Amino acid sequence: MPNDLNAKIEKHTIAVVVDNEPGVLARVIGLFSGRGYNIESLTVSEVDPVQRLSRITIVTSGTRMVIEQIKAQLDRLVPIHKVRDLSDDEKPCIERELALVKVVGTGEKRIEALRLADIFKARVVDATLTSFVFEITGTGDELNEFAGLMSQLGMIETSRTGIVAIGRGPGGF
Amino acid sequence: MPNDLNAKIEKHTIAVVVDNEPGVLARVIGLFSGRGYNIESLTVSEVDPVQRLSRITIVTSGTRMVIEQIKAQLDRLVPIHKVRDLSDDEKPCIERELALVKVVGTGEKRIEALRLADIFKARVVDATLTSFVFEITGTGDELNEFAGLMSQLGMIETSRTGIVAIGRGPGGF
Repeated sequence: MPNDLNAKIEKHTIAVVVDNEPGVLARVIGLFSGRGYNIESLTVSEVDPVQRLSRITIVTSGTRMVIEQIKAQLDRLVPIHKVRDLSDDEKPCIERELALVKVVGTGEKRIEALRLADIFKARVVDATLTSFVFEITGTGDELNEFAGLMSQLGMIETSRTGIVAIGRGPGGF
Repeated sequence: MPNDLNAKIEKHTIAVVVDNEPGVLARVIGLFSGRGYNIESLTVSEVDPVQRLSRITIVTSGTRMVIEQIKAQLDRLVPIHKVRDLSDDEKPCIERELALVKVVGTGEKRIEALRLADIFKARVVDATLTSFVFEITGTGDELNEFAGLMSQLGMIETSRTGIVAIGRGPGGF
């Protein structure tokens, strides 16, 4: 039943290695937004300062057919060196995200925030008499859970990186 | 000497809170690339699932005058709720980034990779008999230093989130 398979909405994590020059990111994103596809998470950072290469990680949801079309179009863009759908690999890839979470409060709530941070292995990266900024890493779900708890303890601000992903084992990109 | 000041190239970390809908990210990035300004790092992730708000963090370099123009244009885009140049604050903001680093090797190099990971407080998130994937967080410079060392010990792949930033102390966005 290939039609059913094609119609199923799946979450995909796509890694793209590109030349680090102005306009490349806009073109990559344009391929998604031009089709009305929302980007759930996007990260980009230079990974090779000598060759000036950046790696973009995009999490998106769509039918297999549309994702295949987007991948094929990405492959044709000149400044793009490699495209890989990490969700297609046999072994699940490692996905991690970083969040900074600011919590303001005193008394029991402040103590409870520290206690939970300890359980979640979050680290204090800024502290005043009435505030903490926690740094936490984990999967998106783990970060959602931590943010949900902290929102009850005075969380006033959060900033998240979005997902980065890498395949398991010794194989390279 | 306002002309001199306006001509100086500075690095800026800009936080933008936007509606999480298709096309918004492309418009934000278009403001930069339309002027030939390179985005050194960009992260985007949903920070408020109820109101469906995303927070975008952009690191860019430019003269103060052009950065001011970009900020003013961002402020005028409808799906944009807040714009803040964290570099303008009196106190330096906290900037952090996450990297996944895959190192393949055996023998002394493998041992040395583990030793250095321990010093940099990197954590092993995947291991085989011949490979490690390390997760490390820190400033961009710290991550560069770690990647530079690991590239001599069998690093075959790395994926970085780009910078997220948050102001110090109890003040909110």
